[in-house]
Amino acid sequence: MHDAHEHREVKIKRDILDTNDKLAEEHHLLFHEHKIYVPNIMSAPGAGKTTLLENTINHFKDKLKIGVIEGDIETSTDSDRLAALGIPTHQINTGGACHLDAKMVAGAISKFDLHNLNMLIIENVGNLVCPAEFYVGESEKIMLLSATEGDDKPKKYPLMFLESKVLIINKIDLLPYVNFNMEKAKSDALSINPKLIIFEVSCKTGEGLDKWFSYLFEKCKIS
Amino acid sequence: MHDAHEHREVKIKRDILDTNDKLAEEHHLLFHEHKIYVPNIMSAPGAGKTTLLENTINHFKDKLKIGVIEGDIETSTDSDRLAALGIPTHQINTGGACHLDAKMVAGAISKFDLHNLNMLIIENVGNLVCPAEFYVGESEKIMLLSATEGDDKPKKYPLMFLESKVLIINKIDLLPYVNFNMEKAKSDALSINPKLIIFEVSCKTGEGLDKWFSYLFEKCKIS
Repeated sequence: MHDAHEHREVKIKRDILDTNDKLAEEHHLLFHEHKIYVPNIMSAPGAGKTTLLENTINHFKDKLKIGVIEGDIETSTDSDRLAALGIPTHQINTGGACHLDAKMVAGAISKFDLHNLNMLIIENVGNLVCPAEFYVGESEKIMLLSATEGDDKPKKYPLMFLESKVLIINKIDLLPYVNFNMEKAKSDALSINPKLIIFEVSCKTGEGLDKWFSYLFEKCKIS
Repeated sequence: MHDAHEHREVKIKRDILDTNDKLAEEHHLLFHEHKIYVPNIMSAPGAGKTTLLENTINHFKDKLKIGVIEGDIETSTDSDRLAALGIPTHQINTGGACHLDAKMVAGAISKFDLHNLNMLIIENVGNLVCPAEFYVGESEKIMLLSATEGDDKPKKYPLMFLESKVLIINKIDLLPYVNFNMEKAKSDALSINPKLIIFEVSCKTGEGLDKWFSYLFEKCKIS
């Protein structure tokens, strides 16, 4: 009985991922057509995604037209923080789902004037596991790891490190107070994904953010 | 087509949860019969579950017979850390799944001599979302929140705060360096779950752990 369920579950999951990927590919083409760079930002809860975006939006607000799609299980706290910076944002409440999928993102895309954007940032649900499995049409997946989470995370959650183009190691201002071996974290991450681009930053002090901003600016120029 | 998938998905998910709960209830009765207290420990990645368990096992190792079921996506790092303390441990690698379920736990239970245990600790996969949905037969769900994750987590991830009997707020040694309003975190958590028992601890300095140890010891006496 249980095995029959499992078999059906695998089949359904494959169907759902196929349907998801087709819709995501439509988004991807739409973004490409409008020359919009779309980073899909992922991390564990509390790694600093929203604070990174506040810094990023403040830095670029006179240079680039930015919109944000904000994914959360509940509340519009993060979306409100970013809307306060004067940019268009749209909140997706996933209603319990632990990741964004292409259908949820489709509903949000329709709220933006795509002719008037250089970058559309997707902030995913805080979770180091499932968001990495779902393509939503993004240009690239970008992940944050907080130094407070420990240097063992690349080996324990390899899929997200494998799927990401960029790893941002945040909260380096706390390095003196936590046990975090930066070299081990980076070499373990690179052993999973040798092409991973790594930035070490503190969204609190601003240290290291200049390199992240340069990276993003280049991406928006190319898009 | 998509809606048909969704409908089938909901039905399958309900079947799976029903099957899961029946098996979990068998575990619960088995633990009760053997007078074993079984806490199911949940948190986001890097909140300090394994360090809490190291402290707990060291404190009780001459007083209680403890075993650990260790859930991880990949690696046996955490299980190795705990086995080094000389207690029986069994590792479950979930192979990508973002939570433990009753069937995975069933396979692990069979590896322990239940006549020879006072407490069987289940360390769940690091994830603030899905582990809260799956009953595996535990006596109680216990969650950790690291002060570095921010005081907005109760409102953003309410289900885990609702399902937990105990909330352990860890890494209070870092409070001087992070923006974390303890009163807000606690009152938001209590507004979701008024019966939640809250401990403030630092697994690094040991501060506050005495109350957690007293709580556990009482639980093991009653079980």
